[in-house]
Amino acid sequence: MHRYRSHTCAALKKSDVGSTVRLSGWVHRVRDHGGVLFIDLRDHYGMTQVVADPDSPAFKTAEVVRGEWVIRIDGLVKARSEDTVNKGMATGEIELYAQEIEVLSAAKELPLPVFGEPDYPEDVRLKYRFLDLRRETLHRNIVKRTQIISDMRRRMGEIGFAEYSTPILTASSPEGARDFLVPSRIHEGKFFALPQAPQQYKQLLMVAGFDRYFQIAPCFRDEDPRADRLPGEFYQLDLEMSFVTQEDVWNTMGPVMTGVFEQFAEGKPVTKDWPRIPYDVAIRKYGSDKPDLRNPIEMQAVTEHFAGSGFKVFAGMIASNPKVEVWAIPAKTGGSRAFCDRMNAWAQSTGQPGLGYIFWRGPELVDEAPAQALIQEGYDKGSNAKHAQGVQMLEKIREENQQRLQKHKEETGGIPEAAGPLAKNIGIDRTEAIRNQLGLDIGDACFFVAGDPAKFYKFAGEARTRAGEELNLVDRDRFDMCWIVDFPFYEWSEEEKKLDFAHNPFSMPQGGIEALENQDPLTIKAFQYDAVCNGFEIASGSIRNQSPELMVKAFEKVGLSQADVEDRFGGMYRAFQYGAPPHGGAAFGIDRIVMLLVGAKNLREVTLFPMNQQAQDLLMGAPSPATPQQLRELAIRVMPTPKKD
Amino acid sequence: MHRYRSHTCAALKKSDVGSTVRLSGWVHRVRDHGGVLFIDLRDHYGMTQVVADPDSPAFKTAEVVRGEWVIRIDGLVKARSEDTVNKGMATGEIELYAQEIEVLSAAKELPLPVFGEPDYPEDVRLKYRFLDLRRETLHRNIVKRTQIISDMRRRMGEIGFAEYSTPILTASSPEGARDFLVPSRIHEGKFFALPQAPQQYKQLLMVAGFDRYFQIAPCFRDEDPRADRLPGEFYQLDLEMSFVTQEDVWNTMGPVMTGVFEQFAEGKPVTKDWPRIPYDVAIRKYGSDKPDLRNPIEMQAVTEHFAGSGFKVFAGMIASNPKVEVWAIPAKTGGSRAFCDRMNAWAQSTGQPGLGYIFWRGPELVDEAPAQALIQEGYDKGSNAKHAQGVQMLEKIREENQQRLQKHKEETGGIPEAAGPLAKNIGIDRTEAIRNQLGLDIGDACFFVAGDPAKFYKFAGEARTRAGEELNLVDRDRFDMCWIVDFPFYEWSEEEKKLDFAHNPFSMPQGGIEALENQDPLTIKAFQYDAVCNGFEIASGSIRNQSPELMVKAFEKVGLSQADVEDRFGGMYRAFQYGAPPHGGAAFGIDRIVMLLVGAKNLREVTLFPMNQQAQDLLMGAPSPATPQQLRELAIRVMPTPKKD
Repeated sequence: MHRYRSHTCAALKKSDVGSTVRLSGWVHRVRDHGGVLFIDLRDHYGMTQVVADPDSPAFKTAEVVRGEWVIRIDGLVKARSEDTVNKGMATGEIELYAQEIEVLSAAKELPLPVFGEPDYPEDVRLKYRFLDLRRETLHRNIVKRTQIISDMRRRMGEIGFAEYSTPILTASSPEGARDFLVPSRIHEGKFFALPQAPQQYKQLLMVAGFDRYFQIAPCFRDEDPRADRLPGEFYQLDLEMSFVTQEDVWNTMGPVMTGVFEQFAEGKPVTKDWPRIPYDVAIRKYGSDKPDLRNPIEMQAVTEHFAGSGFKVFAGMIASNPKVEVWAIPAKTGGSRAFCDRMNAWAQSTGQPGLGYIFWRGPELVDEAPAQALIQEGYDKGSNAKHAQGVQMLEKIREENQQRLQKHKEETGGIPEAAGPLAKNIGIDRTEAIRNQLGLDIGDACFFVAGDPAKFYKFAGEARTRAGEELNLVDRDRFDMCWIVDFPFYEWSEEEKKLDFAHNPFSMPQGGIEALENQDPLTIKAFQYDAVCNGFEIASGSIRNQSPELMVKAFEKVGLSQADVEDRFGGMYRAFQYGAPPHGGAAFGIDRIVMLLVGAKNLREVTLFPMNQQAQDLLMGAPSPATPQQLRELAIRVMPTPKKD
Repeated sequence: MHRYRSHTCAALKKSDVGSTVRLSGWVHRVRDHGGVLFIDLRDHYGMTQVVADPDSPAFKTAEVVRGEWVIRIDGLVKARSEDTVNKGMATGEIELYAQEIEVLSAAKELPLPVFGEPDYPEDVRLKYRFLDLRRETLHRNIVKRTQIISDMRRRMGEIGFAEYSTPILTASSPEGARDFLVPSRIHEGKFFALPQAPQQYKQLLMVAGFDRYFQIAPCFRDEDPRADRLPGEFYQLDLEMSFVTQEDVWNTMGPVMTGVFEQFAEGKPVTKDWPRIPYDVAIRKYGSDKPDLRNPIEMQAVTEHFAGSGFKVFAGMIASNPKVEVWAIPAKTGGSRAFCDRMNAWAQSTGQPGLGYIFWRGPELVDEAPAQALIQEGYDKGSNAKHAQGVQMLEKIREENQQRLQKHKEETGGIPEAAGPLAKNIGIDRTEAIRNQLGLDIGDACFFVAGDPAKFYKFAGEARTRAGEELNLVDRDRFDMCWIVDFPFYEWSEEEKKLDFAHNPFSMPQGGIEALENQDPLTIKAFQYDAVCNGFEIASGSIRNQSPELMVKAFEKVGLSQADVEDRFGGMYRAFQYGAPPHGGAAFGIDRIVMLLVGAKNLREVTLFPMNQQAQDLLMGAPSPATPQQLRELAIRVMPTPKKD
């Protein structure tokens, strides 16, 4: 028999009953049932219930072992009695009667319990990550992460992409964030940089004729702690293609991502045919270039209905400034003063003067809250039963409310009654015009934001999100994808009072040299796009500007000369002089995709050995002081910043 | 039709004749045949011959384009006439009659020709790597590299390994080489290190219960330039398994590697059942722990035949020191004074006093050199025809020589005539005893090295290699694999006059605590092994020491205290206190494996963007000076080493 195991802890089935087998694994827990000891033995694959009778020669050792000890057990497989069969467990039909137990590795008192996964402070979890990683949820998340990445690789390979590893010790990359530097020992006073992304290398690969590149690429940015990004390194599914238009990139990567999501979405529907939403449209409809399309609310401009109206605040703004618009945020089922007031209070809490609204009074409705709470509980506790119960309850409430609405309509007939100060001010005709434009009905509400859209669109988008979430209009059991396209090429930097690139400076401006020469730069679009899932940006990409002349001209507008371009992006600029194919690509954020797919809310829940928010690796003790010899060899000296008083 | 191409440059076949198609690619070369222009259009996938007639509307542009311009061509597919069909080319049955040519990107005068791949200085090749990579051989090598790595991933996945990415910004690792350091901006005066290997992390993964880990892992060592290692980064197929013995690792990874090699060996035989050769045996038989098993020479000790013999030099050494041995290097077909003298001269050129020999005179033989030269030429030029011709010639010569030897034997009968000074000194009986022990015959030779094997074995191994190569005993059309096992755990450091770890300090010593307490440390073996292919180490691995007590005891012997262990390997030492499974693994050198499989002699021929030997990236201009702001943020200052006079 093998030194450590004949089977894994997930392998034994009813057909093994009667066999003598050997298992190795961790003691998940030990229970004493009237003198008989039950050991749950755990390994990577699963769990097996082991029984140690007092008359077994293994009993003595069984009495000694504690949680997380590593042991080997030889024993006899027996069938469980019918009342003790556990159908939720792969090995639930059998148990192993221990004949011999060998302790392979004892464990000291645990600083972090594995069994039961109680909440624990994060610094302890990170310092004892090897214990944390044994806990079921994190272990499963990490396994799923490896599966997702492997699936991405497989799909990319199947459609003719090859994986090329690009250098990690390289030159500063132009992504705009801060580089990590690596002092060169051989060239004193000089530094390598870790790549913020393999952007230049992947473009050079296209110039070198490789056609379809991808890479699960480690990327490095020395940024200050942010909730949505771990300090240090993160991973991208980076890709680039030659001789393509942006449609080719979308038509290639949409299906790959739909495939990956469908594979791991556990039955939740995933967008197959990704809508392509121009940036400007996304801003107007959703107030965001990362819209959560599961939220059915779409905003509309209703400026005309307020122009010259009795609501003087809006009417005055419209009259005095042609840029001013009024946007409506329709909120189906939001038609109660309580809800509208809550929204108004929330707006004020974010620093806004308030949020104007109209709502159309309806009959009294049954509160959805208890059903929603059940659904939430189902999510939080991973209980399918609770979740299903909540969904069923919600359906019943909505059916009931639908009936009450119908009855109310029949009773009142004609025009629904509009409430709220705005309705009174603008009068019934304008109120009805708005209601009809937005397709609202009794029981619904609508919120209004007025001003220069460039300044209020973000707030409007937040109001849309909040209304959708508060009213539970968002179906959480879906993955809604889209491409946001036609991003602006330039933006105006208020700080520096000059033009700046809105996104990737290497993108191709739409209209080419002609547009750069003749068009208002702020109206130039780029062949630049993002992929968005459920309100999160999961990818960014573009068709690249591969013409040296066009590149120089594009950089000129942000105040960089040809010499600057040659100096900063020499490798790429030089390459474009020697036959560069049209090319483009994208980079998908793997950490974010994994988070979406496992339903994690924190990057550290999908990362093997993350640093903490202070950019420290508590497990390995990094960063740490260098030795004087190391510093001497690197010809650097530490010069602490003088403390400020 | 697609904006850039309806087909790749490798796609068009006879069945496409009559179609109008669109291709894009690079102008490989342009030829003018009596006014008609022929353009070889190249992309990643292949080449298509394009014809531009003087009366084609595309002719004007065709006259302008030059090598490496990127163009789009619309044209009509026509069949080639029978005498111009090129069977060696995927598209050799057709040619494309250009109707329209669009220049997508022109190229300046090339600093490095792509067509014909003439030899060029390496600094130009590295600075213009994007052109170098378009050259056929390098392009093919890189593509093969991506395929080999992808194949490794597939095979590892199929046998239940998952790929886990371990951190790149981490703490100093204990591999013993110099770390690259990364200054922490947030923690002034502290540094991250880039991993020399993911050794500690992969062991922590096992402690965390993940069971079967692998990773195509970037590794970083700040070493001085070496011919067999690129500066900076290199890649390993790194793996680790829990609950295994070393046999499990061998039985798992041997088949994986045999599979990978067979997949890419283009029909050359690959060892299926890898021999396991103890380190001590390898040293005695091959004078190396990286034996090239394609070399059939196996050394043997022949001390007894020299003890008390008339060859006073050896006899005196043997009498005066019990450590002294005499090793014989049998050299089949080396039986000529000219060859033996060449070997002796070579030995002297390496600083040895000389190389004693005996050879057994035979008849005059036909020289193999011309056949070997042809085979070599076939390799160098990639010509299968030349190679086959050489092999055929060699077979004939050997057959003829075999007949001459047979005839000579029959004529002389009895004992072959031994020549060389040693033979005279030790006399006919001892000479014959040696010849019989080694299985030598007329026409063969034997070389002798005497002394303390610990001191001469390397030289003896070099002599074995040289004899095998000079006599063309090495079959180059094979991949011969083996495991070298049972490495010594400790070695004596002459420099520091103390014990040191011979290899990996985390390996498990054979015999465990018992051996550490009671055995002469220099005789302790480790569960430590290497994989060797054709004389190159392609992997190293071990079963790990996962017992904290044993670890402390093992480090004690090299002068490190428990506190040192906790300080240097805290993460791992701590982990072993909380239930660590028995585990082991290996790391395969991917760069070396790719070199072997593509037949490259230089790491830069299998690496996408290598640094030069001075550790510079000439393409991107790294390393480069940091800005004062960067240095300030990192709280470091450059302090150049004072120049020595």
